[in-house]
Amino acid sequence: MDLLIKKIIEKQNPTVVGLDPQWDFIPDDIKRKHLLGKQDTITEVCGAILEFNERIISAISFVVPAVKPNCAFYEQFGWQGMRVLYETIDFAKSKNLYVISDGKRNDIGSTMKSYAQAYIGITQVEDINFRAFPSDALTVNAYLGSDGIEPATDLCAKYDKDIFVLVKTSNASSGELQDMNLKFSPIPIYEKVALMCKNWGENLIGQYGYSSVGIVVGATYPDQLKELRSILPYTFFLVPGYGAQGGGAEDVRGAFDNLGLGAIINSSRGIMCAYKKHPTLTFDESCYVEAVNMKNDILSITGKIG
Amino acid sequence: MDLLIKKIIEKQNPTVVGLDPQWDFIPDDIKRKHLLGKQDTITEVCGAILEFNERIISAISFVVPAVKPNCAFYEQFGWQGMRVLYETIDFAKSKNLYVISDGKRNDIGSTMKSYAQAYIGITQVEDINFRAFPSDALTVNAYLGSDGIEPATDLCAKYDKDIFVLVKTSNASSGELQDMNLKFSPIPIYEKVALMCKNWGENLIGQYGYSSVGIVVGATYPDQLKELRSILPYTFFLVPGYGAQGGGAEDVRGAFDNLGLGAIINSSRGIMCAYKKHPTLTFDESCYVEAVNMKNDILSITGKIG
Repeated sequence: MDLLIKKIIEKQNPTVVGLDPQWDFIPDDIKRKHLLGKQDTITEVCGAILEFNERIISAISFVVPAVKPNCAFYEQFGWQGMRVLYETIDFAKSKNLYVISDGKRNDIGSTMKSYAQAYIGITQVEDINFRAFPSDALTVNAYLGSDGIEPATDLCAKYDKDIFVLVKTSNASSGELQDMNLKFSPIPIYEKVALMCKNWGENLIGQYGYSSVGIVVGATYPDQLKELRSILPYTFFLVPGYGAQGGGAEDVRGAFDNLGLGAIINSSRGIMCAYKKHPTLTFDESCYVEAVNMKNDILSITGKIG
Repeated sequence: MDLLIKKIIEKQNPTVVGLDPQWDFIPDDIKRKHLLGKQDTITEVCGAILEFNERIISAISFVVPAVKPNCAFYEQFGWQGMRVLYETIDFAKSKNLYVISDGKRNDIGSTMKSYAQAYIGITQVEDINFRAFPSDALTVNAYLGSDGIEPATDLCAKYDKDIFVLVKTSNASSGELQDMNLKFSPIPIYEKVALMCKNWGENLIGQYGYSSVGIVVGATYPDQLKELRSILPYTFFLVPGYGAQGGGAEDVRGAFDNLGLGAIINSSRGIMCAYKKHPTLTFDESCYVEAVNMKNDILSITGKIG
């Protein structure tokens, strides 16, 4: 997690901008520039999405350390959409941002290895070394146990990359399964998964004291955030649910350690749709202004970081 | 699940062929036909993979009702690989096969809706109606609860499609989480998830008595297969783990109902690598022969189906 933490300290900003380009979010002027009218295909749609992403990335790249594209919004546009995902990641890397691919991928053995190669490794075939979606981290789901995580942690170790495992997600129904208490240890499922993540990361601890195996915990569950912080001293948190989903700065206080490290807070709609809140600003200005507002909001509870 | 069951009865074959094109599996003659030598790129690799898939599909399409490409093996080749996934699905549909996209996707709300649109629905933008990866079913992970399933079941209802939810997976470490017993109901996690799937499917039961919400249960856990069959009367099972992973026909007996319905058994390597077992046959002949062998093996325990 060193690369992410280094960027957080440099920019004094523990936030990440979600790049989830729902069509409704894209401003009319970007749409008009790319759409032709009756002859429109997915190619034109993808052009608009890529411009939307690149404009956001350019606007925020001096203030924010990381971006998090969610694969679903690209996959819905087929291979053309996945090309936009690649181009978005590539553009964000060119702006020196840390990129978390939010794919929530999960499988076992050689299949999980393929997912991990795709996002945080290298696909090697014959003499070809290929980086499919060259990110710094991938979100993953641990329902399948170690067989689904170790192929990814192997690549974390090899290429100095990270994963974030779903533990306590931000949605209303997350408790249906995650909050069920276990019989033989007096803890809920999410805490069991969190402790598994602690173990998976114990040999991957970097110079700032955090391991390559992070976890996802929603801002909408502040008590669980605080509890998990106390039992996972070297596990970094990716925290969705701030802003549009209802979580505020006070709700994420418990995610941070005494140095203001230990967590990165995600906002997607708050930045992507900032222009709807600021009709007198340009699209790019409004992204920047809301990214700064978010930074200041979170810094008000962490203080100086690092 | 009607379309799948209809094809199973027509072909008297409750098996599905996994299309997981690991590079090692591809015969040398197919590789040689596509690779150029030093100038090779992922484009040539993808050409070989598509031919591999199309040859398998053509060889087995008269005997097998369904195929199951696992997205990971395509995603590792980036957007070019995802184009091969599209072309593979499209080719399988042209051969009248039922296609299960094995993506184990999971997210919430509009994000999960995007995944579901991509595989079992339609992506609608402006006047464009686009089918990204036009499958009949998608495998999904239920760790996030109803918020992650209902966007998919909505599309199952709308477009007569199916999902298969991970319940008890075939891998060795599946028990680390899935077998943990719950405190307030005397059942393990996988059974809790199974019962959630039963509920999610209860308003989606088709003419054969099975719902659109199937589950994934590994052939490597025969006792759990039998137990789940008894408590889930209208839930169809997708059963990996037969063949290379160690499960045999006897192990999957418990997955079927009295009519030989209720389950479809997957084999991937057994068919894809059949040519290594049959050096005197062509690649295509060996796929066909092993598909027939598998059919006969499973039919020996189900008897006539339907």
